Amino acid sequence: MGYRLPEHFITYCLRGAGQVFFMENALTGVCFLLAIAYASVDTGNWATTVGAVLGLVVSTGTAYLIDARDKAITQGLYGFNGILVGIAVPTFLAAGPVMWVLLLLGAAISTVVMDAFSNVVTKNWGVAASTGPFVLTTWMLMLAAYAFANLPIASMGPPKLPEAISVAGFAGMAPQDMLVILCRNIAQVFLLGNAVSGVLIVIGLLVESIPATIAAILGSVVALFCSVLFGADPAAVKAGLYGFSPVLTAIACGVIFLKTGPKVLVFALLATIFTVIVQGALDTLLAPVGIPTFTAPYVLAMWLFTLPKTQLQPHPHAPSPDAKIGN
Amino acid sequence: MGYRLPEHFITYCLRGAGQVFFMENALTGVCFLLAIAYASVDTGNWATTVGAVLGLVVSTGTAYLIDARDKAITQGLYGFNGILVGIAVPTFLAAGPVMWVLLLLGAAISTVVMDAFSNVVTKNWGVAASTGPFVLTTWMLMLAAYAFANLPIASMGPPKLPEAISVAGFAGMAPQDMLVILCRNIAQVFLLGNAVSGVLIVIGLLVESIPATIAAILGSVVALFCSVLFGADPAAVKAGLYGFSPVLTAIACGVIFLKTGPKVLVFALLATIFTVIVQGALDTLLAPVGIPTFTAPYVLAMWLFTLPKTQLQPHPHAPSPDAKIGN
Amino acid sequence: MGYRLPEHFITYCLRGAGQVFFMENALTGVCFLLAIAYASVDTGNWATTVGAVLGLVVSTGTAYLIDARDKAITQGLYGFNGILVGIAVPTFLAAGPVMWVLLLLGAAISTVVMDAFSNVVTKNWGVAASTGPFVLTTWMLMLAAYAFANLPIASMGPPKLPEAISVAGFAGMAPQDMLVILCRNIAQVFLLGNAVSGVLIVIGLLVESIPATIAAILGSVVALFCSVLFGADPAAVKAGLYGFSPVLTAIACGVIFLKTGPKVLVFALLATIFTVIVQGALDTLLAPVGIPTFTAPYVLAMWLFTLPKTQLQPHPHAPSPDAKIGN
Repeated sequence: MGYRLPEHFITYCLRGAGQVFFMENALTGVCFLLAIAYASVDTGNWATTVGAVLGLVVSTGTAYLIDARDKAITQGLYGFNGILVGIAVPTFLAAGPVMWVLLLLGAAISTVVMDAFSNVVTKNWGVAASTGPFVLTTWMLMLAAYAFANLPIASMGPPKLPEAISVAGFAGMAPQDMLVILCRNIAQVFLLGNAVSGVLIVIGLLVESIPATIAAILGSVVALFCSVLFGADPAAVKAGLYGFSPVLTAIACGVIFLKTGPKVLVFALLATIFTVIVQGALDTLLAPVGIPTFTAPYVLAMWLFTLPKTQLQPHPHAPSPDAKIGN
Repeated sequence: MGYRLPEHFITYCLRGAGQVFFMENALTGVCFLLAIAYASVDTGNWATTVGAVLGLVVSTGTAYLIDARDKAITQGLYGFNGILVGIAVPTFLAAGPVMWVLLLLGAAISTVVMDAFSNVVTKNWGVAASTGPFVLTTWMLMLAAYAFANLPIASMGPPKLPEAISVAGFAGMAPQDMLVILCRNIAQVFLLGNAVSGVLIVIGLLVESIPATIAAILGSVVALFCSVLFGADPAAVKAGLYGFSPVLTAIACGVIFLKTGPKVLVFALLATIFTVIVQGALDTLLAPVGIPTFTAPYVLAMWLFTLPKTQLQPHPHAPSPDAKIGN
Repeated sequence: MGYRLPEHFITYCLRGAGQVFFMENALTGVCFLLAIAYASVDTGNWATTVGAVLGLVVSTGTAYLIDARDKAITQGLYGFNGILVGIAVPTFLAAGPVMWVLLLLGAAISTVVMDAFSNVVTKNWGVAASTGPFVLTTWMLMLAAYAFANLPIASMGPPKLPEAISVAGFAGMAPQDMLVILCRNIAQVFLLGNAVSGVLIVIGLLVESIPATIAAILGSVVALFCSVLFGADPAAVKAGLYGFSPVLTAIACGVIFLKTGPKVLVFALLATIFTVIVQGALDTLLAPVGIPTFTAPYVLAMWLFTLPKTQLQPHPHAPSPDAKIGN
């Protein structure tokens, strides 16, 4: 009824950007793209912004190839993994023709993986795929880069055996330093180490949801507190690398996938703390293969904390009625 | 009807201890706690016993927070993962305030993970979560310890690349040495390297189930035989580290989850031997990240051997009727 | 009705050989066994051919122990994992009595794992287990070999941290060299580095299915093109190690599990390219533990690309109706 398809497609893509923070709002998506562009201005590396846009367009477009549901496409549910693939590839790999080919392939594949994950974790288990497809797809691309000479690595690794950290060294931190970290915790969801980008993202959240904004900020605070308490690597904490997954967990478990209430707040707090622990754990686990965790700590924690949403009876320690082998 | 709640809660906790060996019996749980305490007397390290009690109480208590089914709570199905978390943390990490915080968090998280696993492996696949939640939760805690300065490691690692073992060296073993190993194989289910603790655990099993006791002992014998046959590291074999997972597999596949019978005995024997192989495999797999396997070999083998319990038709090598992409 | 059981059982086994390439045809299986035997003639190592036959017989026979469905047994669906276990063990481990014990155990276990996988990936998710059971079982056997002195390693590893490849060096390749690689890409599905074996396999495919034959050849071409484009290790490419998984993906996604059509061809092409990427990725991932990828790149890609076969609605970014924790 008078809608023009190209305009629509752009709206879906912008919603896809917003859905990285669970916001089905094109204006939120615009704020997020500005956050990404601001970081490019700051670093001088525009490949991440170009990659973000390409990833968004290709992943949303690929949804048509695989006959995905129209409603999901319009909600932007096929764009949020693709935009993250599009930022991650030029962040960790050196720009070049084969890198751009890989980026386009990765964005398209992320849409297929989204449907694959939805079949397993949503249809069978009742939880969201969320950024799981981004994590799996981009892990494959990053691991493959070590094996392929035409995909030189810009800033990952090198692979090394994990060593126990012995000095934490948070002797003193000025309040303004803490504020910068709190913003970076939010910006790193888009792999941006820029505090101003974090502020732009918060503005984008405010456009759509005040509860989600509050959850993001509280998640950032809890992550900073816990990472200092546990004694995480100060350089990583300052870069916001201990905060981005907990921020997502706080929003997902406190506001988006569970109905906010007193018990859910305690539950989401536990989930957020657990995400900080999993961040440390996956940093150790992936050290020997030299790839980043991406949002895997969030995905794992969110799955574990949203799976038990109905009353469940664990398997009794006795044979089930359909046990039939050898009888 | 005259039952006092605190008494009940203690009973549930004790049943939780018993459920590590699938025994819903509080008295069995008392024997198991005695086995843990005996090892503490022997080593002088009481943190493991204190941790066991805390883990039991916190994990069972957390089940109320997440509105778990009352029946499952009373059966002790939320305690057996927590008690193992509570023993494992002070076994591998140095005692300190942050360690105790981590232990309490880990016990609470193990209950959430239990319900998450139940949703997937029990509701969807029809098998038991068993100690899977303990393994996953504690792996995260142990891996995180490498990344956190305030969680110093006491006895794990260091991470190293696996090297092929070349000399087995079981030149001769006295019968009494073998008996000690057979007991340690059982004690190590609770991470105890103490033969007397193994005897106390066997007594606890006898209280509830003679078939389970026999399966435990046979599983221990099969594990010792196979690990010598394959030429496993003698130090690990002597410490009981090649036996605890096979012991659990033998009970689980021979008595608990399948109906005992001639074919099931052959099947459980194959599962038990496979568990020895998986123990060696996971030792190799985890060497680069420096964490213990815990009961993962049992969990993997038990899942693989209890999943095929109904007659299944594998996927034909032809399109399924609902294949729709691109048509 | 006049059928003799031994004859039948042999037919089932031969079909099992054929099913490695999805062909339920005993004559195809004969061609494949000839391909394996030809490579043994060439290398002088007959253990792989003997292992293949033993693996086929034991895995198919074990299906009776676990009361598998008769129809699936007759289709050869319990043999194709076992034959691959039987070839892999003597390829990577040194021959000796314990190795043969391990081979027989592994073949039997692969049948149990087949039913376990079918319960999860086929019954719950609607996709084929395919060679997943072979991969998981043989990974366990290979990892365990590092831990067991009586299972000396012949040709794997050593475990090492991955290093980024910097020189591709495909300066020039003669057409006949390319032809040899295209054949090896197909032969390596059976772990054979022999081009003539590849030709015998193609003949076996032709006996049953022309579309599958075409898909295999096109998959081999795409794999060679992509691995050169990405700059993969020339030695690995020349040995056919970048091609065997893509060949299987091309057949599986282009002909077997989806209905061939214009969109499916584009989809299968993307899946095949992705398989080359995953091959590089898993080479990196497994370097620290020193084991081969086997067909894992194919299995992962095939699962991800056949899971989205029905129209799916991804999880909305909102609480699901049955979200109940803490309410």
